[in-house]
Amino acid sequence: MGASSTSERLTTALQVNKRVCGWNLTTLRFPLVSRSARRNSPGVRKSYREVIDVSWGDPHRAGVKPLSFVRQVLAACLYPQLMDGDKLMVDVKQRAQRLLKTCAGGSVGSYSDAAGIPQIIQSVSEYILRRDGGIPCHPENIYITPGSQWALTVTNILKVLVNSEASPRTGVLIPVPCHSTTIVSLTALGAVAVPYYLSEERGWALEVETLQQALDSAKGVCNPVALYIINPGNPAGYVQSRKCIQEVIHFAAEKKLFLLADEVYQDCVYGKESEFVSYKRALAEIGAPLSDTVELASFHTASKGLMGECGLRTGYVELVNLDPAVMKYINNLFSTNSCPVLGQVALDVMVNPPQPGDPSYPLYLKVRHFLFTITTGDANSLRGAFAFPRVFLPPKAIEKAKEAGLQPDTFYCMRLLEEAGVLFSPGTEYGQMEGTYHISFCIMTPTDTMEEILKRLSTFHKQFMREFA
Amino acid sequence: MGASSTSERLTTALQVNKRVCGWNLTTLRFPLVSRSARRNSPGVRKSYREVIDVSWGDPHRAGVKPLSFVRQVLAACLYPQLMDGDKLMVDVKQRAQRLLKTCAGGSVGSYSDAAGIPQIIQSVSEYILRRDGGIPCHPENIYITPGSQWALTVTNILKVLVNSEASPRTGVLIPVPCHSTTIVSLTALGAVAVPYYLSEERGWALEVETLQQALDSAKGVCNPVALYIINPGNPAGYVQSRKCIQEVIHFAAEKKLFLLADEVYQDCVYGKESEFVSYKRALAEIGAPLSDTVELASFHTASKGLMGECGLRTGYVELVNLDPAVMKYINNLFSTNSCPVLGQVALDVMVNPPQPGDPSYPLYLKVRHFLFTITTGDANSLRGAFAFPRVFLPPKAIEKAKEAGLQPDTFYCMRLLEEAGVLFSPGTEYGQMEGTYHISFCIMTPTDTMEEILKRLSTFHKQFMREFA
Repeated sequence: MGASSTSERLTTALQVNKRVCGWNLTTLRFPLVSRSARRNSPGVRKSYREVIDVSWGDPHRAGVKPLSFVRQVLAACLYPQLMDGDKLMVDVKQRAQRLLKTCAGGSVGSYSDAAGIPQIIQSVSEYILRRDGGIPCHPENIYITPGSQWALTVTNILKVLVNSEASPRTGVLIPVPCHSTTIVSLTALGAVAVPYYLSEERGWALEVETLQQALDSAKGVCNPVALYIINPGNPAGYVQSRKCIQEVIHFAAEKKLFLLADEVYQDCVYGKESEFVSYKRALAEIGAPLSDTVELASFHTASKGLMGECGLRTGYVELVNLDPAVMKYINNLFSTNSCPVLGQVALDVMVNPPQPGDPSYPLYLKVRHFLFTITTGDANSLRGAFAFPRVFLPPKAIEKAKEAGLQPDTFYCMRLLEEAGVLFSPGTEYGQMEGTYHISFCIMTPTDTMEEILKRLSTFHKQFMREFA
Repeated sequence: MGASSTSERLTTALQVNKRVCGWNLTTLRFPLVSRSARRNSPGVRKSYREVIDVSWGDPHRAGVKPLSFVRQVLAACLYPQLMDGDKLMVDVKQRAQRLLKTCAGGSVGSYSDAAGIPQIIQSVSEYILRRDGGIPCHPENIYITPGSQWALTVTNILKVLVNSEASPRTGVLIPVPCHSTTIVSLTALGAVAVPYYLSEERGWALEVETLQQALDSAKGVCNPVALYIINPGNPAGYVQSRKCIQEVIHFAAEKKLFLLADEVYQDCVYGKESEFVSYKRALAEIGAPLSDTVELASFHTASKGLMGECGLRTGYVELVNLDPAVMKYINNLFSTNSCPVLGQVALDVMVNPPQPGDPSYPLYLKVRHFLFTITTGDANSLRGAFAFPRVFLPPKAIEKAKEAGLQPDTFYCMRLLEEAGVLFSPGTEYGQMEGTYHISFCIMTPTDTMEEILKRLSTFHKQFMREFA
C-alpha cells in the first residue's frame, strides 16, 4: 500500500538533512522522556525524591503557577453559572460575558471561524498596532492558530512555499541551535533545512555573513526560498537589535527569501540593554520599496505570552505583503481546521491584560511581577525561557558515549537524569557546531526549584568529571 | 520566491480533482458564511430577527446547551480554588483532582506528551475495549489529537501513505457526499480524491460494487492506496451493518487498501434497527489472516461524543496492524505537536461519563437524555448530526443560478439565507451525483429552533418555486 516506500522516502530525506546540516535526528528526546516517566514511577530505587523536568520550555511543568485572571476568565466562560456568585471580580465577569458573546451560540463549545473569532482577531490586531508604535495592522492578515507553530501554522505557510516535487529540493534557512521538531516538520514537507550558525562567542547573535555562508552551502543541494528567524532567540536567548533586523531584511530582500519570524518570546524581554523590535516594525521603518514587497510571517503564542499556558495550544500568525493569490491558498489550508476556543479566550487576555483602574489589575501586576522575579531572580534580565550553556566533556566520556551509541551530550544528560534526577535537553536536539556540546533547560522555573537543580547538577558534574578524568 | 509557481501547482491539483471527481471546490462555504456574519450585524434591514445557522455540525451554535458535568470538571481543573467551596459535586472534584495529577506540574497549562497524557490514553483504550466487547486495545496504538481529523490526524497518516512525487499520483477513495475540506486537505498533500457514490435510493448505504467502480475510474489517473469510510455517515447518516463492514474489509484486503474509518458519530446511534459496530471489532471478528494484516486507522472526537464541545478540538486515532517502521514515522510526525490539555480532560469524561451511584449521575443522565430528545424529537432515531435531503429545483432556477455563476443548490441556499435568514450548506460542498441537488443542515438542534427553521423554510420554498415555475 505504498507505506514502506514512503518510509524509505522519509528516511532518505532525513538522511539528506543530517548529511547536509549536521542535525542528528536519530537522537530525539523520546527515550529520555520515557525514562523520566519510569523514574517517577513507584518501585524504582533512587537517591532523589523526584525527577525535576526542565527540558521543556514549559513553565508550569517546572512549577510556575498560572495567572489567576486568565484562569478565572476561562472558568467563567466554561461554566457561566460561576458568575452568579461574588467569588469573581467584576472585570473577570465582564470579560467572560463579552467573550461569550463572540462565540457562536454563546458557548465556547462551538466551532469558531477557521481564522479565529473575528472580535479576538480585532483585539490581536490592535495589540500589534500598539506594540509597533502605530504601524497599521490589518485583521484580515491575522490567523489564530492551534497548536505549535511548526505543526500547523508554519507548515501551512511552507506548504505553499515548498514544492516537494522540485529538483533540486526547496530549502529553508534555519538557525543553529533550533529545536529538532522544526527539522522534522520541514523534512516531512519534502524541504531541506539549511543551517546558519548563531555566534556563540557573541552571546548567540545572528551575523548576516552566516546567512550568506548558508546560501553558499546550499548550492547544488537545494533552492532556498525562506529564512526562519527566532527572535528573541530560543533556546539561546539573544535579542536582535533594530540594526541587525534591518540587515537581515535587506539580505532577505536581495535574495528574495520569505521571512518566517518566530517572535514568541517577545513578551519575555526585560532590561535596559534589550528591547524587542518586531520584524514587521523594522520592515515598515525601512520604507518603500522593501516595506511593500518583502514577504513576512510573524508568529506569537499564548504558551509564552502568558507565563505558560502551553496546554491551551494557541497562537497567531500575521502575514505581511503576501500575494493575494497565495493568501487565498493559505486561507484554504487554514480552513481545514480551527483553533481551540478556550485558547482564543486566553489570547484575548494576553493581548488585553487588566489595566490600571481595573479591579483585577493590582493582583495581576503583583502576580506577574512575582512570577518573573521568582523565575529569573531578577525581573530585569529575562530573555526567552531557556539557558543553553556549553559543557566541556572529557575525551573518555566522549569515547564512552560513542561505545553506547549515543551523542556525548545525550550521554551526559542521561547520566544526569539517572544519577541526579534532573532532566535537561542535550544540545544535539538543537544542533550545534561539530565538536561542541551543550545542555538546555527552562529558566522560567521557581527559584527554590532552580536552586535544587543547580545543587544536584553541581554534585553530579564533579562526580562525572572525576569518573572520566 | 517560488510561491506563485506553487499556487499554480495547487490550482492544477484542484482542477485535476474537479475534473476527475466532480467535486466543485470553487464554491466553498466562505462567501455564504461571511454573508451570514453581515446579516447579523446591525443596520441591515431584514424580515427576520436573526440568522439561524445550522450549516455546521455544531450543536452549541444551534442552541444546544453543554453537559454541565463536563464543564464543571473543566472549570475545576482550570481554577482549582473552585473546589474549596461546596458548589461542585464530590465526583466532579474527584475527577478534577485525578486529572490534575496526570498533568505535568499539576497544571492544565503545561504541555502534554505528544501522543497525549498517558493516563487518559489508558482511559480511551479501556473505553474502546468495552465498546468492542473485549477485543484487546493497546494504548501504544492510540494518539490523542488536536483539531479536526483532516487537518492533522488523517493528514499525518496520509503523509506517510501519500507519495506526492509518485507518477501516477497517489489516490484515496472518498465517499460522496463528503465535506469538501477533506478534498482540500487531500489535494494539499498531492493526492487525488477518487469518489465512490453512496446509494441515495437505499438511504445513503455503502454498496461494495461502487468501491470497485471507483477503483476502475482511477485507472490511468492515480494509484489508490487508501479507502476513507464515514460510519455512521456524515452528512447523510447511514449506519453500516456488520455484514456491510465485513464486505468492505474483505474488499480493502483484496485491493491492499489502508482503511481510514471516520467513526466520530459512533455515540449518536440510537434505535433498534441501527447498531454501531466499529471497523476494529468487525475486523477482529473476521479472524486471521485479515485480522492481523488489514491496516486500519479509526477516528473519534469529543466534538461529537459530548453533545458538542467542538470548540475544544480534541479527538483520538487508534491505529491497527501498522508496520512498526510506519508507526515510527507517524510517531515522529505527531511529535511536532500536542493536543490541548483541556480537550484531553473532556475526552476523559467522554470515555468515562458518570456512572450509576455517582453523585452527578442522575443529573448527567437526565440532561443527556433531554438533549437527545429535544434535538431529535425522539431519542430512538438519531443517526449522526446532519440531514441531507434532496431538493428538486425547477429549470428556470438552475438557469438563473448559472447566470449568476453559482451552483444551483448554492443559489438556493443563498436565497434562503437572504430571504428567510436560515443558513444551510449546499450539497455542492459535499459532492453529489450530477444533476441532483441537496441541502445539508445540523439536526442536533433544539426543537423550538428546528420548528422555526422548518416554518421559514416552508414559506421560502413555496415562494421560490412560484418565482421559478
